[in-house]
Amino acid sequence: MKLRAVTKKLESLEETIIVQLSERAQLCRNSAVYAPESTSCSEKITSQSLFDLRFYQWERSESLFGRFLRPEERPFNRGLPEPRYGGLPPEETLPELGIPIREYDEVNLTSPIREAYLQLIPRICPEGDDGLYDLSMERDICVLTAVSRRVHFGAFYVGECKYRQEPRIFRTLAEHGDTRELAQRITRKDVEERIMSRVRAKAHRLQRGINRRVRNVVDPEEIVQLYRKTIIPLTKEGEIRYLLRRLTDHLRRPTARGPMDRHPKERSPTKS
Amino acid sequence: MKLRAVTKKLESLEETIIVQLSERAQLCRNSAVYAPESTSCSEKITSQSLFDLRFYQWERSESLFGRFLRPEERPFNRGLPEPRYGGLPPEETLPELGIPIREYDEVNLTSPIREAYLQLIPRICPEGDDGLYDLSMERDICVLTAVSRRVHFGAFYVGECKYRQEPRIFRTLAEHGDTRELAQRITRKDVEERIMSRVRAKAHRLQRGINRRVRNVVDPEEIVQLYRKTIIPLTKEGEIRYLLRRLTDHLRRPTARGPMDRHPKERSPTKS
Repeated sequence: MKLRAVTKKLESLEETIIVQLSERAQLCRNSAVYAPESTSCSEKITSQSLFDLRFYQWERSESLFGRFLRPEERPFNRGLPEPRYGGLPPEETLPELGIPIREYDEVNLTSPIREAYLQLIPRICPEGDDGLYDLSMERDICVLTAVSRRVHFGAFYVGECKYRQEPRIFRTLAEHGDTRELAQRITRKDVEERIMSRVRAKAHRLQRGINRRVRNVVDPEEIVQLYRKTIIPLTKEGEIRYLLRRLTDHLRRPTARGPMDRHPKERSPTKS
Repeated sequence: MKLRAVTKKLESLEETIIVQLSERAQLCRNSAVYAPESTSCSEKITSQSLFDLRFYQWERSESLFGRFLRPEERPFNRGLPEPRYGGLPPEETLPELGIPIREYDEVNLTSPIREAYLQLIPRICPEGDDGLYDLSMERDICVLTAVSRRVHFGAFYVGECKYRQEPRIFRTLAEHGDTRELAQRITRKDVEERIMSRVRAKAHRLQRGINRRVRNVVDPEEIVQLYRKTIIPLTKEGEIRYLLRRLTDHLRRPTARGPMDRHPKERSPTKS
């Protein structure tokens, strides 16, 4: 995938994130659903929160339909079933990427995404409880998966594009485990600032002229901060994880263990 | 619920419908998922389409979480399980409405909503197949449930508000089964035109300034036509069904069967 196609896709996900956050902000915080052991209406099942239970069930279905075969769709839950219906054919490795499907979860950043989003809810949603739990959980899932898609799409595909521009430099840095220099190489401060300006402008534009007696508005700065503190840093973190995994595979083979050898199991070499 | 609160809610659902349609339009038509017997990647399960299967599984989960206890959330599928987690307490009748929860599905218009939406997909989505089936099905479900929420919220709550404004007239019309006069009484052509103008303006506003190299745009007239041909007529159809069910209950008791007596089972009288 060409870098231009990748950045187009990332740009188009900005609207998705903004409108899904705005949809969530039409409902109250409903903090009860995130509390542990909130799953207790007609019977007690687990110590999970209602939200955890709903999200697990949602991902369970999506897994059956093959969603997590795509690199940008990383699961927030573990213990999901294998794909069963439709979806992509189960290829070992997608031609655009340098690691096989079964290793995608080496680049799974859903845990910090979830944490950042749960902290954002009280900042964008009205106080209180409207009882529309199923609906607010649905919207939580839409936001979380949109943010995760943005982060992981960037991590895998921007990471791969950057590697292909300077393969020898990236290979050397990865082999030396030089994550600091890798981080510098993949950082473009000007691009980051441009993304945040564009997100701010879109968040204003998409909510301009809204009837505030009817709809709640999300402060555009909250969305910019989500990009600044979560989406952009996690995308870069994901790029580094992807590059290390992609480029140091031979170091992790039993005959030649190296500094990155945290997964010393025997594996077939990835293409590079 | 006061009519003003009801119309506020209906107005706020307009943005939801528009943005969810726009989200769907970022993906291809993917007509394969709607074809019967498309559920056949790794094993053959049923003669359902992939979409039917996914939608059923989604509603099955939502039913467990109590979604269909609310009048505006009508299921598109039959044979769903009883609520189990969270959600509303299972009251017999919500105080704002005159029929008990177990009768909500007498006002279920999901079948024509589904049909109208499936016809709309090729009008708003690019041709072809992008393989992102799980994602396009998720967005289909978001659109379908948003449209259904708009139609049924209007049917139940606008119907109830109109009845409370002129209870004797509506009672008489319902007892005579005069659906023609009922339809005239609940119709406000000026309000309908105002809604459609507002929807048109919002569909323009929400897509203004979009980068068309990155995002697809939905023709605002397609959304106006969805309101004109589907949402508004079905809401009125639902109001009539609701009023007939609400007001002719005694006619349907075994001792006094009337023209509306299509469900002659013994029932406790509804409040009125």
